[in-house]
Amino acid sequence: MTTISNLANAVDALAIGRKCHDFIAELFPICRSITGNGLRETVGRVSKHIPLTIHEVPSGTQAFDWTVPREWNIRDAYVKNSRGERVIDFQRSNLHVVNYSVPVSAKMPLSELRQHLFCSPEYPDRIPYRTSYYRDTWGFCVSQRQMEGLEEGEYEVRIDSTLENGSLTYGEFLLPGTVEDEILISCHACHPSLCNDNLSGIAVATFLAKMLAGCQLRYSYRFLFIPGTIGSIAWLSLNERHLHRIKHGLVLSCIGDRGALSYKKSRRGDADIDRAARYVLRHSGHSYNITDFSPYGNDERQYCSPGFNLPVGRLSRTPDGQFPEYHTSADDLNFVDAAALGDSLSKCLAIFDVLENNRIFVNQNSKCEPQLGKRGLYRAFGGYGDSASQELAMLWVLNQSDGTNTLLDIAERSGLGFDVVRQAAIVLVEHGLLREHARELTRSALDPEMARS
Amino acid sequence: MTTISNLANAVDALAIGRKCHDFIAELFPICRSITGNGLRETVGRVSKHIPLTIHEVPSGTQAFDWTVPREWNIRDAYVKNSRGERVIDFQRSNLHVVNYSVPVSAKMPLSELRQHLFCSPEYPDRIPYRTSYYRDTWGFCVSQRQMEGLEEGEYEVRIDSTLENGSLTYGEFLLPGTVEDEILISCHACHPSLCNDNLSGIAVATFLAKMLAGCQLRYSYRFLFIPGTIGSIAWLSLNERHLHRIKHGLVLSCIGDRGALSYKKSRRGDADIDRAARYVLRHSGHSYNITDFSPYGNDERQYCSPGFNLPVGRLSRTPDGQFPEYHTSADDLNFVDAAALGDSLSKCLAIFDVLENNRIFVNQNSKCEPQLGKRGLYRAFGGYGDSASQELAMLWVLNQSDGTNTLLDIAERSGLGFDVVRQAAIVLVEHGLLREHARELTRSALDPEMARS
Amino acid sequence: MTTISNLANAVDALAIGRKCHDFIAELFPICRSITGNGLRETVGRVSKHIPLTIHEVPSGTQAFDWTVPREWNIRDAYVKNSRGERVIDFQRSNLHVVNYSVPVSAKMPLSELRQHLFCSPEYPDRIPYRTSYYRDTWGFCVSQRQMEGLEEGEYEVRIDSTLENGSLTYGEFLLPGTVEDEILISCHACHPSLCNDNLSGIAVATFLAKMLAGCQLRYSYRFLFIPGTIGSIAWLSLNERHLHRIKHGLVLSCIGDRGALSYKKSRRGDADIDRAARYVLRHSGHSYNITDFSPYGNDERQYCSPGFNLPVGRLSRTPDGQFPEYHTSADDLNFVDAAALGDSLSKCLAIFDVLENNRIFVNQNSKCEPQLGKRGLYRAFGGYGDSASQELAMLWVLNQSDGTNTLLDIAERSGLGFDVVRQAAIVLVEHGLLREHARELTRSALDPEMARS
Repeated sequence: MTTISNLANAVDALAIGRKCHDFIAELFPICRSITGNGLRETVGRVSKHIPLTIHEVPSGTQAFDWTVPREWNIRDAYVKNSRGERVIDFQRSNLHVVNYSVPVSAKMPLSELRQHLFCSPEYPDRIPYRTSYYRDTWGFCVSQRQMEGLEEGEYEVRIDSTLENGSLTYGEFLLPGTVEDEILISCHACHPSLCNDNLSGIAVATFLAKMLAGCQLRYSYRFLFIPGTIGSIAWLSLNERHLHRIKHGLVLSCIGDRGALSYKKSRRGDADIDRAARYVLRHSGHSYNITDFSPYGNDERQYCSPGFNLPVGRLSRTPDGQFPEYHTSADDLNFVDAAALGDSLSKCLAIFDVLENNRIFVNQNSKCEPQLGKRGLYRAFGGYGDSASQELAMLWVLNQSDGTNTLLDIAERSGLGFDVVRQAAIVLVEHGLLREHARELTRSALDPEMARS
Repeated sequence: MTTISNLANAVDALAIGRKCHDFIAELFPICRSITGNGLRETVGRVSKHIPLTIHEVPSGTQAFDWTVPREWNIRDAYVKNSRGERVIDFQRSNLHVVNYSVPVSAKMPLSELRQHLFCSPEYPDRIPYRTSYYRDTWGFCVSQRQMEGLEEGEYEVRIDSTLENGSLTYGEFLLPGTVEDEILISCHACHPSLCNDNLSGIAVATFLAKMLAGCQLRYSYRFLFIPGTIGSIAWLSLNERHLHRIKHGLVLSCIGDRGALSYKKSRRGDADIDRAARYVLRHSGHSYNITDFSPYGNDERQYCSPGFNLPVGRLSRTPDGQFPEYHTSADDLNFVDAAALGDSLSKCLAIFDVLENNRIFVNQNSKCEPQLGKRGLYRAFGGYGDSASQELAMLWVLNQSDGTNTLLDIAERSGLGFDVVRQAAIVLVEHGLLREHARELTRSALDPEMARS
Repeated sequence: MTTISNLANAVDALAIGRKCHDFIAELFPICRSITGNGLRETVGRVSKHIPLTIHEVPSGTQAFDWTVPREWNIRDAYVKNSRGERVIDFQRSNLHVVNYSVPVSAKMPLSELRQHLFCSPEYPDRIPYRTSYYRDTWGFCVSQRQMEGLEEGEYEVRIDSTLENGSLTYGEFLLPGTVEDEILISCHACHPSLCNDNLSGIAVATFLAKMLAGCQLRYSYRFLFIPGTIGSIAWLSLNERHLHRIKHGLVLSCIGDRGALSYKKSRRGDADIDRAARYVLRHSGHSYNITDFSPYGNDERQYCSPGFNLPVGRLSRTPDGQFPEYHTSADDLNFVDAAALGDSLSKCLAIFDVLENNRIFVNQNSKCEPQLGKRGLYRAFGGYGDSASQELAMLWVLNQSDGTNTLLDIAERSGLGFDVVRQAAIVLVEHGLLREHARELTRSALDPEMARS
């Protein structure tokens, strides 16, 4: 079995990015929502790549302050003009229907219809994306041009949807590592025909899971393919007593466009995931953005709610709301890019690689330096002004390994690369000069065993 | 009853500034000192606006390392030349006499007189202000031009003053709020005919008190009109066992000139008053200065002495010693400005408004977000890229209200205005989503009840 | 007896620098190593200036992970060409022999000899300095030009050295002060004919010790003249139970060149020595460098190993490896400069002066200011805008002396000079307004008495 390090170093980002793009293209036509057959089908297609457990949470299930809503399904929807022509047609784009619209079958004049139409005047050719999950109403979304083309007269309006007791579907995949501590990867899978938001996250998560499945892992990796907001809330509610296992986490969203990578910190701001992501982005050689946590965005809102405060950050390229194609029909297959998808995936691997190897060691000869030379770890002849970076890295690791510093701490303090520092630690462990620190069980307050003590 | 918020938003700064200026003009002619009838009369005139308690502390009273001095009063003082002309005349300006001069009645040649004359060569037309509170001596202050005009000859010197057992006068006004915790507002009232230093402070404090008297207050507000140094020392000495009630404080001095507002931090440097003042000045839209504490200046020296270390800052416009008119006859009625006085007063209100409302709340649904939509707190249709700032503020308040963050913390972290954040908290409390944190009694070490425990 | 302050203020830096340079010239020809007669003779010459205790640590002594090596001595060494000419000659420069070369007496062709020759192509005229302390081998160092001039043919190679059981020599000098707490000054004395590295350190340490010997000292001062690495390791091993006494320390190396002074922080980074050195360099009026700790350099590597973590910094001019003359024959008597040596010595005195006087005091009248005027400590007439810096310093010292702040803290917070602050403290102590804080015994974990408790 290979390691994440090997994967991260050898990954053909463009090739894997192309697979992601193909998968996005496959999923694009499906009309997803926070419940229903579109979501179920999407999760089903992911499960052809990785052995997902598919959960169905019944409508009416209580999840903290929320209730799992009735299941929404839609077969067809249109608006016909007086000549019987479909002037708005769900079959052409599932964005045309306000997501979660109640069924409707009626005739009405344009003036009444208008109250149910949404368009986006800044971009007159785009269909906007609107939802109404928790209020029984209906509507259509159209481009500004379409709107302007509607002539006065009587219209036939039909939405052939159902809103009935059923269930909320999500997919979960746990890759066990040598420890029970987990890294959570979460993506929302509820948006209809929108590519960057968030077929990109689904595709990258799927192929990440597929690659990691062939790896020797320290951490366990938990992948979630869930509807936004209600999905993470339901999952948190069902899994509350296991949350102490989550040591790091990433929400993946809007991760396929051509913009620079953008990392949004966890609410903690200095969690290991925050530092690992910063390290990888800083050393990527590309421009990047790092932003502080804010309680607006994707499911990190729930993971980072104050009662959980999980160390979960978010990786995006151009974040939600910051690209003009966002939540419009312009977020299409051309807007996402194979190279960008592959780059996002390889940066995830690089971040996990840091986390897997970011351990604390203890110098076994903490009083003075150990004699590296007698172990063949030091250049033969003294007096040189330069020290090879490997020797320097060994000295840094020995000096800082007092049981408080991680290898990432040492890399950042020394200015040496994480890999160089890590390699030095490996050599020192081999020679008995370093020992891994007995793992501190940083169980959260949620841990029932902690609560007892 | 109105609130400070309403006051702060509705105040007609120029109108109130004009009242301040009028009051300064009324008080200007009085010859004040650290004791005596001038101080008594000044405090008396303040008491026509607000129901002051007037205290008289007898000469000889011990106050820590200090002793309340004998009371000084003066009726007249002059220097006559050989032709009997008053060449220096107390009736023209009370600055002409060194404050606290012992009585004198003598004839002497110019050479001897000169040893008792003070002038300010940099500003040849100004009379400087000098004091000699704790050393029995006498002197006259004159402009450089006056000094140069003195011809050789015999002079008659007379200071008709008394220095006898009496008392030190100060005025105190407590406005009770719903809690016993206090905000202290202190100004020195001992300087003779000098406007910015510190009739400005007296006037602003008087009208602040008058306005707050009509308000619904959480904190109690304590106003002190005291002679500088010995006054605050005497007050601290007499009130030592109640000092734990002072949660915030402001010294008002030199607050009427046309310069930018200047806040000097408390010795603690990060007290709530320091942060509230910084917030208000930063968001004022005007230039401002914030300086670190130093043990030189006004009565904050005593409030912030290490044995008390009270959270008391100082609000000024151009601080003492930093304007050339300082402690000279040029600090007159033209040097202070109605608009500046009104602006200073309104900034005090704004600071108090922040303090009154800067509370800690606890999210009652800390695990995941509560469902705002079902309470009518969220826009009807989802999918928009922007969130209204009110929604965003609710999410921030919910996310950060874990029992450690104040509303000001949240405003600063989110970049949202304090008012927006506060309004969000009010709405959330109304919907049962937020509860005020049980007030931590931050009693100081001076609290006898704390000392017992 | 004089004080360090007096010394620091009165020192004739150039005169003392000339003495340092003369001493360097005296020591230059000796062939030193980490053991042997050259080191022994060097320490002996230092002991003519100061009453050193000379220690001999037998070969084979265990010191943590290290073993004291056999003693190395050398009488002669050369390479003769086929005409019997000494083409490489130890008598001309002791750098020509790889330090710690085993004896050799052989004939060989140029091709074989070449495998034992070292040169420095970037500087074709310089002989490089090489060592092989812990590997039995031999070699010669030559300039690039010398190397190029060697013709084909048979060479006679001879190194008349011995590597036998003996001892490692070091010199130690303890100057007792009024407390047992120590300041450690350490320099490596193992390099052969190289001036900046580190005859400069030896000379400055010697004359510092000589000057301090005539002083009234609070701290005890311990001077070490030791071979690099193995010397400090041996000393730490032999003195482990006394290390808690070391409260501050300086390694002196490369301290005689014309570059700016450079201070390398201790591993702690904010130890008193780090702050005192920073204060002195900042106020020196000259450019300077301050660098963070790194585990590469001189004996601070051992003092700052994690098991000891002693507060020991390093003072240099241009540090090791950062000047092109480093470890070559160009680090000669011209490369070091009397003025630079004297300046380095006087900066050491200034740093020790700060440490000697950097005490914590407690204000005896902590509630309000004490009345300075009645003690004659305040100007007679009030009202001036300026306060003399001495009055200001008294106010700062009184305000900050709550038992937590050192005089250096106060100097840095106030922006006043350390001397001004210190002088104010002296005056306040004389008037009973300040008392020195009962010294906190900051014994390290190494202290056996601490370990018991």
